[in-house]
Amino acid sequence: MNTAATTRIRAVDVIRKKREGGELSREEIEAIVLGYTRGEIPDYQTAAWLMAAFLRSFTTAETAALTDVMLRSGEVLDLSEFPAPKIDKHSTGGVGDKTSLVLAPVAAAGGLVVPMISGRGLGHTGGTLDKLESIPGFNVNLSVADFRRVLQACGCAMIGQTAEIAPADRKLYALRDVTSTVESPYLICASIMSKKLAEGIDGLVLDVKTGSGAFMKKEVHAVFLAELMVETGERMGKKMMALITDMDQPLGRYVGNALEVQEVVEVLQGRGPEDLRQLCSELAGSMFFLGGITRTVAEGRKLSDQLIASGKALGKFREMVTLQDGDVGAIDDPRRLPQPQHRFDVISSASGYVEAIQCESVGTACVVLGGGRERKEDSVDPSVGIVLHKKVADAVAKGEALCTVLYNSEDRATHAKQLLKAAFRISEARPMNVPPLVHQVIGQSGELN
Amino acid sequence: MNTAATTRIRAVDVIRKKREGGELSREEIEAIVLGYTRGEIPDYQTAAWLMAAFLRSFTTAETAALTDVMLRSGEVLDLSEFPAPKIDKHSTGGVGDKTSLVLAPVAAAGGLVVPMISGRGLGHTGGTLDKLESIPGFNVNLSVADFRRVLQACGCAMIGQTAEIAPADRKLYALRDVTSTVESPYLICASIMSKKLAEGIDGLVLDVKTGSGAFMKKEVHAVFLAELMVETGERMGKKMMALITDMDQPLGRYVGNALEVQEVVEVLQGRGPEDLRQLCSELAGSMFFLGGITRTVAEGRKLSDQLIASGKALGKFREMVTLQDGDVGAIDDPRRLPQPQHRFDVISSASGYVEAIQCESVGTACVVLGGGRERKEDSVDPSVGIVLHKKVADAVAKGEALCTVLYNSEDRATHAKQLLKAAFRISEARPMNVPPLVHQVIGQSGELN
Repeated sequence: MNTAATTRIRAVDVIRKKREGGELSREEIEAIVLGYTRGEIPDYQTAAWLMAAFLRSFTTAETAALTDVMLRSGEVLDLSEFPAPKIDKHSTGGVGDKTSLVLAPVAAAGGLVVPMISGRGLGHTGGTLDKLESIPGFNVNLSVADFRRVLQACGCAMIGQTAEIAPADRKLYALRDVTSTVESPYLICASIMSKKLAEGIDGLVLDVKTGSGAFMKKEVHAVFLAELMVETGERMGKKMMALITDMDQPLGRYVGNALEVQEVVEVLQGRGPEDLRQLCSELAGSMFFLGGITRTVAEGRKLSDQLIASGKALGKFREMVTLQDGDVGAIDDPRRLPQPQHRFDVISSASGYVEAIQCESVGTACVVLGGGRERKEDSVDPSVGIVLHKKVADAVAKGEALCTVLYNSEDRATHAKQLLKAAFRISEARPMNVPPLVHQVIGQSGELN
Repeated sequence: MNTAATTRIRAVDVIRKKREGGELSREEIEAIVLGYTRGEIPDYQTAAWLMAAFLRSFTTAETAALTDVMLRSGEVLDLSEFPAPKIDKHSTGGVGDKTSLVLAPVAAAGGLVVPMISGRGLGHTGGTLDKLESIPGFNVNLSVADFRRVLQACGCAMIGQTAEIAPADRKLYALRDVTSTVESPYLICASIMSKKLAEGIDGLVLDVKTGSGAFMKKEVHAVFLAELMVETGERMGKKMMALITDMDQPLGRYVGNALEVQEVVEVLQGRGPEDLRQLCSELAGSMFFLGGITRTVAEGRKLSDQLIASGKALGKFREMVTLQDGDVGAIDDPRRLPQPQHRFDVISSASGYVEAIQCESVGTACVVLGGGRERKEDSVDPSVGIVLHKKVADAVAKGEALCTVLYNSEDRATHAKQLLKAAFRISEARPMNVPPLVHQVIGQSGELN
């Protein structure tokens, strides 16, 4: 045994230490994560380590170290050439959650740089890339050089994960997915934050969803994750805010890729549903505040509203779509977006009020129609989806349409219809206690109003 | 999705269930263990499952199910052709623990059938197969047919694990070894019991070691494992007893493969060290009692002593050695066993009493000399070892030999000497409270005396 061999960190020892609840050093975390990424540590040791981490949990220092190791496993963009504050937003995902497509152009129109790297939909939640790709020609696979070029030209750009960014996360996530180690707040935090911080941003607004359509069904779990991410980002020198927002019913009225682009355009035109408009305004306001464009979030909201009212935000969106090879005509005329062959209404069998909408079921109905993915390798039909005519607390008469299903396959539509019928709960009395859109704000406290 | 696909047990779901502390059904355990053994479930999912099992633990029902699934993963010997009771003994391993070589011939001489399948040494503990192989020519790799033939001829046979017996255990153990999931009492119990029950036995005496040279350093852990194994065996219809015995110093005076064979012969000749003779008598007595040869353990002990005094036990050992191609001349004349080239004494630097012997260090010293394995693939030098001249509570004068080191390599001997010097703790006063050899007896209670 030579000295190098005896001082090398062994995977079995790191696994044992975490199994026994010990706090791992940065070097120990690095040994596992980079060793696994380079193919030096086998997947079975990494899987055992992930399960030990899942069940024994991480300290804040370990979570920050894991985030930093994953971040530095690949390329970290250097956007210091851009003088403007670089602020992004990340959502933990939901049903009908299309705010990114509104926020990037609004924030860029207000003077921020938004280098947004997003993901695809999986399970009942949609993905920003899938929505963008329903715009004919839109290219989410830009090289880093082209990403910079679009950012230079219009202040925002929206692309997919590149092979260079946080390769450790991609490899670890694939392993977590098949070893039931996804739902750990520590591992989720490191996964999200390593990718977002690789964008070279100054600050990040987190939209952490809670409710029946969210990843974190319980608010206490959403708050825990939000606090962890805010603390991790702040430890790494970033300006952080998190909004805990409602995902107990779909956001807006459209669920489905092309449908959601249409709704985004409506919001950018100063129209669209109230809940979506309000959430975009809150998030944009927070981005402007974090970037120092406005002194308060409230001023940031006002700025956001002005940028929409003036048409500047829509102009910025048209600019970005053009720069990323999208058909800007489809922005001006939604009939140029992919269209489904058929549609039918889901009818209410009772009169009363919508008491609740089982949000995950609506998301699953969209997946069943072909608008989302059960597995990563599935392709997505951009034209299908659901238009909600009734939302929570709305009055409904027997025989009235609750929603319209847009589809291309009768079999799939039949299954989706069953899910949607069961998703709506109708009561005689108007429901009390409809939850607010923003449950709470974490970080930069007191700046919401 | 067809019905077969939806009802199939998925590994991720079983991992999640155990991760959340749920009790797995036999079918779920079978899906993982047999799936892994057949190569249908990948090692990374099995590793995550093992870590979840390690940290969430198993119920007695799960442990019994796991044992049974592993047992049935391979061949289970049918020894119903043998009218005599088939009783085996298993030890959790220690330093200088050579009782199996005494017990098999004693028990067979007393009318039991002993179909003993043993392992090799790993880490600081020795292995029965390595000891047997220090007898020139001794063949531990008998086919099942030859194993039966030897059993027919002399009532006992001692072989190594075959590929047909509990293949699930062999594969799972290799994975546990590299994923820090070895030290779980539930997994240890299933591993030991699945292999022992595959021998087709009626009953099993367990020698669960505790102390500084044992796998279970703390008695509470040894008792927990012993109770688990006794309960698991009884659930499966076997007669079970467990003795919690002392491994806070080496057993007997010889540590090393050929040396231990020599000490076994001494015991079978009615000589040998008191502690080893006493433990063999206790274990043999328990085997006779479990097999119904005697009405009590005490009568069993007497029978064991008689069989040794009459020379019948030694005769049986010579018979077995001959039947398994060993040089019986080496039994009669220990100089025909492998001999080391060199020897030196480790001298006491103080006068007083041996207060303690760090038992694991003695085992490690033997491994360092080449008499054991650090890794499975290492080969073993049968001739090296340690002869203890002083044991706990013995008086010692300054300059007197504590032990003699038998070796073939100066480098290795120097390292072993350091370990051995540090292993002996000398005190001025005679130590009080020397622990008894048998700490407690579990199962078939009240039958020890």
